[in-house]
Amino acid sequence: MMIVMKETASDQEIEAVISKIERAGARAHSSRGERVTVIGAIGDVEQDENVATLGLEGQPGVDRVVPILKPYKLASSQFRHGEPTVLEIGGRKVGGEHFALIAGPCTVESREQVLASADVVKAAGAAMLRGGAYKPRTSPYSFQGLGEEGLKLLAEAKAQTGLPVVTELMDARDLPAVLEVADVIQLGARNMQNFPLLAEVGRAGRPVLLKRGLAATLEELLMAAEYILKEGNPNVMLCERGIRTFENAYRSTLDLQAVPVLKELSHLPVIVDPSHAAGRRTLVRAMSLAAAAAGADGIIVEVHPNPDEAICDGPQALPTDTFAEYVDVVHQAAALAGKNIAPTRIGAPLAGAA
Amino acid sequence: MMIVMKETASDQEIEAVISKIERAGARAHSSRGERVTVIGAIGDVEQDENVATLGLEGQPGVDRVVPILKPYKLASSQFRHGEPTVLEIGGRKVGGEHFALIAGPCTVESREQVLASADVVKAAGAAMLRGGAYKPRTSPYSFQGLGEEGLKLLAEAKAQTGLPVVTELMDARDLPAVLEVADVIQLGARNMQNFPLLAEVGRAGRPVLLKRGLAATLEELLMAAEYILKEGNPNVMLCERGIRTFENAYRSTLDLQAVPVLKELSHLPVIVDPSHAAGRRTLVRAMSLAAAAAGADGIIVEVHPNPDEAICDGPQALPTDTFAEYVDVVHQAAALAGKNIAPTRIGAPLAGAA
Amino acid sequence: MMIVMKETASDQEIEAVISKIERAGARAHSSRGERVTVIGAIGDVEQDENVATLGLEGQPGVDRVVPILKPYKLASSQFRHGEPTVLEIGGRKVGGEHFALIAGPCTVESREQVLASADVVKAAGAAMLRGGAYKPRTSPYSFQGLGEEGLKLLAEAKAQTGLPVVTELMDARDLPAVLEVADVIQLGARNMQNFPLLAEVGRAGRPVLLKRGLAATLEELLMAAEYILKEGNPNVMLCERGIRTFENAYRSTLDLQAVPVLKELSHLPVIVDPSHAAGRRTLVRAMSLAAAAAGADGIIVEVHPNPDEAICDGPQALPTDTFAEYVDVVHQAAALAGKNIAPTRIGAPLAGAA
Amino acid sequence: MMIVMKETASDQEIEAVISKIERAGARAHSSRGERVTVIGAIGDVEQDENVATLGLEGQPGVDRVVPILKPYKLASSQFRHGEPTVLEIGGRKVGGEHFALIAGPCTVESREQVLASADVVKAAGAAMLRGGAYKPRTSPYSFQGLGEEGLKLLAEAKAQTGLPVVTELMDARDLPAVLEVADVIQLGARNMQNFPLLAEVGRAGRPVLLKRGLAATLEELLMAAEYILKEGNPNVMLCERGIRTFENAYRSTLDLQAVPVLKELSHLPVIVDPSHAAGRRTLVRAMSLAAAAAGADGIIVEVHPNPDEAICDGPQALPTDTFAEYVDVVHQAAALAGKNIAPTRIGAPLAGAA
Repeated sequence: MMIVMKETASDQEIEAVISKIERAGARAHSSRGERVTVIGAIGDVEQDENVATLGLEGQPGVDRVVPILKPYKLASSQFRHGEPTVLEIGGRKVGGEHFALIAGPCTVESREQVLASADVVKAAGAAMLRGGAYKPRTSPYSFQGLGEEGLKLLAEAKAQTGLPVVTELMDARDLPAVLEVADVIQLGARNMQNFPLLAEVGRAGRPVLLKRGLAATLEELLMAAEYILKEGNPNVMLCERGIRTFENAYRSTLDLQAVPVLKELSHLPVIVDPSHAAGRRTLVRAMSLAAAAAGADGIIVEVHPNPDEAICDGPQALPTDTFAEYVDVVHQAAALAGKNIAPTRIGAPLAGAA
Repeated sequence: MMIVMKETASDQEIEAVISKIERAGARAHSSRGERVTVIGAIGDVEQDENVATLGLEGQPGVDRVVPILKPYKLASSQFRHGEPTVLEIGGRKVGGEHFALIAGPCTVESREQVLASADVVKAAGAAMLRGGAYKPRTSPYSFQGLGEEGLKLLAEAKAQTGLPVVTELMDARDLPAVLEVADVIQLGARNMQNFPLLAEVGRAGRPVLLKRGLAATLEELLMAAEYILKEGNPNVMLCERGIRTFENAYRSTLDLQAVPVLKELSHLPVIVDPSHAAGRRTLVRAMSLAAAAAGADGIIVEVHPNPDEAICDGPQALPTDTFAEYVDVVHQAAALAGKNIAPTRIGAPLAGAA
Repeated sequence: MMIVMKETASDQEIEAVISKIERAGARAHSSRGERVTVIGAIGDVEQDENVATLGLEGQPGVDRVVPILKPYKLASSQFRHGEPTVLEIGGRKVGGEHFALIAGPCTVESREQVLASADVVKAAGAAMLRGGAYKPRTSPYSFQGLGEEGLKLLAEAKAQTGLPVVTELMDARDLPAVLEVADVIQLGARNMQNFPLLAEVGRAGRPVLLKRGLAATLEELLMAAEYILKEGNPNVMLCERGIRTFENAYRSTLDLQAVPVLKELSHLPVIVDPSHAAGRRTLVRAMSLAAAAAGADGIIVEVHPNPDEAICDGPQALPTDTFAEYVDVVHQAAALAGKNIAPTRIGAPLAGAA
Repeated sequence: MMIVMKETASDQEIEAVISKIERAGARAHSSRGERVTVIGAIGDVEQDENVATLGLEGQPGVDRVVPILKPYKLASSQFRHGEPTVLEIGGRKVGGEHFALIAGPCTVESREQVLASADVVKAAGAAMLRGGAYKPRTSPYSFQGLGEEGLKLLAEAKAQTGLPVVTELMDARDLPAVLEVADVIQLGARNMQNFPLLAEVGRAGRPVLLKRGLAATLEELLMAAEYILKEGNPNVMLCERGIRTFENAYRSTLDLQAVPVLKELSHLPVIVDPSHAAGRRTLVRAMSLAAAAAGADGIIVEVHPNPDEAICDGPQALPTDTFAEYVDVVHQAAALAGKNIAPTRIGAPLAGAA
C-alpha cells in the first residue's frame, strides 16, 4: 500500500497514519516531497489485507490509497516463476504451447442434437465437447435447461466420442450430479463472484473454466480464480467472453487485449468465447481468428446441427457442415501466434482458408 | 417483437420469417415501407418468449429484432394499474408516500458495536436496522463475516430496539438461519442474477431488498425481481447502489436517474444505497440528500460507532454522533419530493440543516 | 510519480530507472519492500510532466507508473487555498453560497420563441438565459442552428429582459460574433477536448461554461479547464451533463457524485444540466431537485413556450407554464444543501412544492 | 421510425401521433396488438429526420420511438450495393482485398528521427508513413508538436522514401499547411464529432483517416463519416483505436468486433490502431495479429528508432530493429483473413514468425 497524503495534511495527520499502519503489523516508510508526503506500508499479501482493512481512505489528511502488491498470489505469474500452467484433461493439453478448441451446442436439447454435434466436433479435430444442462437465463419465462436429463445425454456423447465434457454448474446443490459427467466445470459470467460456489468447485478439485463477469476487471477475475486455487484446486482456465460497454451494435464487447495481459499477469490458460460476445454467427469466425492470433490458449464455440431450430442462442451457433474448415483456419491463426499445432491439422492452403 | 428486414431482403426471406412466427403461435403483421419491410409478431409475454426463441436475428434477410413488449409482467406498473406497492415491515411502511431510512453497520463485528449502532439508529428515527453476517468479499483473504454468530447478535439488537432487521443472504443453504432473524433478506449486487437464489427467496416469501448489479440494466433488475415475484413473493424492494463506469474518482457511479425511471416502469419501491457507491463518508451526505430529493422510497446507509476501527468499509460509514442531524435533513429532502414525513421528523430549521 | 517495479526487477533495472529520473531533473527516492521496490520521482507539476514524458511504463522491470500529484494546478482547490471561486456575471453571482438557475430554449428558433421564453425565465426568477445559435448535431441532415441570426435574437432578448446570455461556440472562427452577445460562452461536451478552441476562449477572457465530455473523467474535465485558465481566463464553470454508460433507459447517465467530488478537487463552480442527460421532461424535475440537493452551484435547464413544436430536443424541455413552480422547489432543494437563497424565492409551502 | 405506444395509451393519443406524422409529410401506418399499438412512420432518411424532429418521445401515450432506417446513407453498404470502396493513395491501395500497413513515429521530433523511421518503414514493406506535427494532449503542459516545422520534416521524409504521408489536423485554420504535405488527413478520436472540422476536410477532398471517438458508437462513427462524404469527399477510412470502458489494465479497450461489423454496415475501409489502445509495446504485436486476422483493411502502428527517448508515447512504439519481422507476420495474419498479400511479403516460415 502507498498512502498519498493531501497537500494540506498536517504533521499530526501524517503521524496518525504511520502509527495506524505500525499497529497493524506492517512497516511504514514515509517520503516527503516538495508538495506531498507519501507513506509506504510494506508487507506481504496478508499484511496488505490488514492495512487495507484500516480504512485509511477515510482518515483525515489522506488523499488516496494506492495498492502496490497485486492482491492475488496463487494466480500470479510469479507464483510459478513465469512458467505457464498446462492442464491435461482427458488426454488433451491446454496452456503453454497447447491450443484447445472446445465446441458443442449452447444447450443440450435432445439426444439426436447432442450426439450429432459431438460427432462433428470430434471429426473436425476439436479437443472437447461443450453443452449446457443448467442454463442461466435473464427471464424466468425462458427455457432453463434439461437439468439431470441433460447431464445423462452429455455422458452418452462422451461415451460415444471419447471427448472430455465441459458443462456449467449454477447451484452448489447440483455439484454431485455435475461431477458425474463433467471433465471441466464451467462457471458462468453471472457467477464469477458467487463466492460460495467458487469455494465449492475449489474443494471439488475438478478442472474449472471460469468466465469473466460482464463488468469484471482482469484483477477481479484473477481474485475469483484465487478463491478456487486457495481451496487446493490448481486446475483453472480463465475465459474472456465479452464485457459490457456503451456499444450496442453487438451483445457484448470482446476484449481481446485481455488475452496477452492475463498471460502476463497469470500462469493460468486463457480461453476465448467468441459466440456469446458476438451473439451472431457472422462475427464468430472473424473473432475466432482474432482470438487465436492474439495468443489465446483455446476457444470455446457453439455449433449446432440445425442452428435455426436451436432452443437457445441459435443465431450465434456455427452450422456443423462448415465446422471442419473453421477448425482448420483457426488452428492456422493459433500457429501464427506460436502455438504448436499438429501438422495434420494445418491442411488447407492459405488461399482455401480465406 | 418487431422484425426489421434488411433493405436487400427478398420476398422469400420475408415470407420465411412470417411463416416461422406463425408456426410459433403468434400473429405476424408486415408493413412494407419504401425501403424496408417491418414484421410485427404480436402476442403476450409468453408468446413473445416463443418468438424470441426462434432466433430470428440469425435468419437470412433480417437486420434486427426489436422487442416491443416489456419482458416482465408482474414487476410492471401496468400489473398494478399504476398503483405503487407499499410494503409493511414490522410496522414500518415503504413505498407510495412512505419513506424509510435503513441504517446500521456494514458488517456485524461485535455485540457492543451492533447494540450501540442499533440504539443510535433507533433514536434518530430511522425505520430499520441493517447489518451483514455473511459478506461477499472480492478477496478470499478478507474477513468473510461472523456468519450464524452475527445473525444472533442481530437478533439481540432487534429484541432490544424493536427495529426490523435487514441482512444479506449469499448461499441458499444459509436460508433457514437467515429466516430466523431477517425481516428483510438483502440480495447483493453480485447475486442479482444468481437465479437459483432468486427463486429460493421467492419461495421463502419474506420481503427482499434486491440490489442492482454493477453492470445490470434497469430491465435486467426488473427481470431479476420477476424471478422472485413469479414464485409468489410480492414483497420486493429494488435498490440502486451504483454502477460500474469508466470514472474512477469514486468506487461506483450512483445512477439516480434510475429512481424516477424505475418508478415509471414498476410498482415496486426503490431504495438507494449511497454508501457503497461513494466509498467515502464525505460524499454520503450529499448523495443521500440527492437520492431523497429524486424521489427514492428509502435510503440504506452505513453508520458505525467508531468508523476508524470498522473491519469493513469504515471510510464510508457515517459516525453515530452526527446521525440524528443527518436523518433530519434527509427527511426534509424526501418531503420536497412529496413524501409524507411525520412533522416531528422535520425539526431543524433550514439553516441548521445546511 | 511513483514507479512500482516488478517483483522480478533486477538491481540494474532499478538503477536505470533512477538515473533516467535524475537526468530529467527530478529527485528519485527508492523504497525497497520485501517483495517490490517503489521509486518516487518528486518534483513540481512541470517536472512531473518531464518525468511522465520519459515513458517509464515501457522500461524493463517497470510494473506501473502511478501519478502522485494532480496534473492540474490552476484548477485545483489548493490554488485558492480552499476558497471557492465566485463568478459575477451581469450582476448575478455563481459559486460559494450563490446558486444560479440558467434557463431557456435548447435552440434559438424564432423571435417569438426566444422573447417569450426569456420573459418566463426572467419572471420565474432564474439568473440567466440560455439558447443555442450554433448546434452540434450528430447527423449532417439535422438543423444546424440559425447562426448569426440566432445571435441577434439572443441580443434582443437580453436587451428586453436584462438577463445575461449563455450561448455555445463550436468553431473558433465564430468567436468574434459570439463575443458580441455572450456573457458566458458554452463549450459543448463534444468539444471538451478541442484544445485549440479551449485556448481561444482562454485568450478571450469571457466567462466559460465547460461541459464534461461523454466519456471524460473528472480529471480530464479539470485538465480541459486548465487549458482555459492557463491562457489567463479565470472565469470557468464546470458542467456535469451525463456520461455514457451501458444503460440505455435514458440518453446518458447523470453523474451527480461529480458535484461533491469536483467541489473537493477544484475551486470552480459546478453546474448541472439535467435536460440533456435525461432526454425527457418527466425526469428533469426529479434530477434538478437531486442536483440542487447534492450541492450544485447552478442548474442549466431547457424551457420552451411550446415544447411539442420545438425544432430540437422538445421532449426534454419544460413547458413555460409550470416553470415558476419548478424554480421555486429547486431553490428549496438548494437551500437544503446550504445555498443562501433569497427569502422571496422560497415562497410555496412544502405541500405545494411536492 | 416506429412509435411504440404505452399499454395505457388512449385512442385520442394514438390519433394525435398519427396526425403529427402525417403533417410532417410521412405516411403513418398503425398496428394494434393485443396489448400495445405500434405506429410506423415510413419515409426516406430526410423524412425520417423530419419525423425525428417531432419529438414524439415526449408526446402523451408514447412509450418509445425506435428508428428503423439507418441514419446514414452515403456511408452505408447499400449505397455501393455491397461493393467495398478501394482507395488509391500514392499508388497504394486500401480496402477490398488490399491491406495497408501505415507506420511511423507518434510525434515528429527531429529530422534524424523522422528520416530514420521512414527508411525502416519503407524497407519493411509498409504502405504509408505516419507522424504527428500537431498533437492533441490532455495536459496544456505537455509538448504540443512541432507544428509547421514538423510538416516540413514529413515532406522531406516523403521526398526521400516516396511513401505517402498520414498526419493529423486539429484546427481548420491549419488546413492549408497540412494539405501541402498530407496524402491522408488524420482526424483524431477527440475530434470525431468536431462537426465544422469534418465539413472542412469534406470540402478539401483529400483522403481522411477518421478515428472513432473514445465513447462513440459505430453508428456515430458512420454519421461522422457521413459529414465528410456529404461535402463530396468519398475518400474516408474508418479507424478503430480503442474505446473507454471500466477496465483500466490498459489505456483503452480495443474493440475488434468493430472490424467485421463496420464492414457489414459500410463500404468504407476499416483500419485498426493497436498502439494507442494498448499503450504499451508488449501488447501491440498480439493485437496487430488479431486485427489483421479479424479482417481489418489496414493497421496504423507506431515505430520509433529509439522508443526509450521518444517525447511522446514511447512505451507503445515498436523498435525499428524488429519491425520487418513484425510486418511479415502481420501480413500472414491478413492473408488468413482473405487479403491478397504479395507473395514476397510472406517470406518467413510459420515457425520463424511465431
